[in-house]
Amino acid sequence: MSAKVRLYVDQPLGAGQSVPLSRDQAHYLFGVMRLTVGASVSVFNGKDGEWLTEVAEAGKRAGLLTCQTQTKPLQLPPDLWFLFAPIKKARTDFIVEKAAEMGAARILPVQTEFTNSERIRQDRLQAHAVEAAEQCGGTYVPEVAALERLDRLLDTWPAGRQLMFCDEAEVGSALSLAAREKGQPWAILIGPEGGFSDRERSRLTGLPFAHVVSLGPRILRADTAAVAAMTLWQQALGDWA
Amino acid sequence: MSAKVRLYVDQPLGAGQSVPLSRDQAHYLFGVMRLTVGASVSVFNGKDGEWLTEVAEAGKRAGLLTCQTQTKPLQLPPDLWFLFAPIKKARTDFIVEKAAEMGAARILPVQTEFTNSERIRQDRLQAHAVEAAEQCGGTYVPEVAALERLDRLLDTWPAGRQLMFCDEAEVGSALSLAAREKGQPWAILIGPEGGFSDRERSRLTGLPFAHVVSLGPRILRADTAAVAAMTLWQQALGDWA
Repeated sequence: MSAKVRLYVDQPLGAGQSVPLSRDQAHYLFGVMRLTVGASVSVFNGKDGEWLTEVAEAGKRAGLLTCQTQTKPLQLPPDLWFLFAPIKKARTDFIVEKAAEMGAARILPVQTEFTNSERIRQDRLQAHAVEAAEQCGGTYVPEVAALERLDRLLDTWPAGRQLMFCDEAEVGSALSLAAREKGQPWAILIGPEGGFSDRERSRLTGLPFAHVVSLGPRILRADTAAVAAMTLWQQALGDWA
Repeated sequence: MSAKVRLYVDQPLGAGQSVPLSRDQAHYLFGVMRLTVGASVSVFNGKDGEWLTEVAEAGKRAGLLTCQTQTKPLQLPPDLWFLFAPIKKARTDFIVEKAAEMGAARILPVQTEFTNSERIRQDRLQAHAVEAAEQCGGTYVPEVAALERLDRLLDTWPAGRQLMFCDEAEVGSALSLAAREKGQPWAILIGPEGGFSDRERSRLTGLPFAHVVSLGPRILRADTAAVAAMTLWQQALGDWA
């Protein structure tokens, strides 16, 4: 059983292990959540599963938790990369949150020809992924990669990884995910609000590992499309079975 | 081909028809979007499809469009109600936006035992549904109903309407939507952040028209769950075929 408060920590976890808290974490647990010595906190680090801990020291700027029992084993998500073109700040934050909640293993912001933003705050997006993992009960936090040009990423695409891309211009295409073998590495690519350029589209459709998937007759916003695409994939090939 | 600017209007549309603009609409078209006489605007009213219009008069507080040709027929969404428990304001706005984008025919805010908010701004939520329809290229705007208690809604549930509900406590259940007949009236119910109460859950699972559907091993936020649930339904029984 998890405690009410769940925290990601960048520390080893194990029976009897002490977990020192950062200033921010101490502020959150003792200032915001008003926990005191003896209170329960669930922690995970992305490697050792989820542990129930007890507050051993509670200060304004520091603190210490003591691991008691493991409450969940590490549960890795399927090997799914989530590629998206950053959009306006609030929606980009949402997309990262959604990708983490929906069980992406890795989140890769990509720059396409119609992407407006040329920079992202990688640390900020990573913090959103951490928060989403804390909230959704997962034991894993997807890494948010640095912004990379889509073309470059495709130039160095790993052998054997399939790519599902969602394109509003491709309304008629069928969904054939269910016929694919499970347990393979995949990636999902969501285009920017303006769609892909003609050049990008023809490159994507020509790739032997790319599969275009339709998301219905209405044009979805990028954050909606992110959840919809991951739902289709998780249902057909992921851990929703 | 639609114009770049798309507007919902509460006016009859047809060849040669004049469409008077409200003060807000005139401000948006001529103040914000800087359109002038002769510019193209796509309009729809939820009944007559989408029409290409031309600006005939452009004032600060009023204006007139003239219908030219129909660019899309009316496309009604499947007969799908979307029921959700309102949460924090920004997320509630998002849920309504997502439901409209994903093709709900009607949006019904419901009060459950663990719903915090006892009031909603129905006009504000309706405005979000309109905006989503304008953005997603649809020709239909789902009505946002008044807040109603879930119990009361179930007491007067229409005969023949199936209900899919998503409950994080029901992780193991299978998805059998694909086996159902298409073209039937349905509803999707998304619970509040705290989940359903035991009493609600046992009432729901006992209903002959209710079907529980799992949304995977992670706990999804209500707005994520909304998109995921509608994706599963649209893919199996809706207009995504």
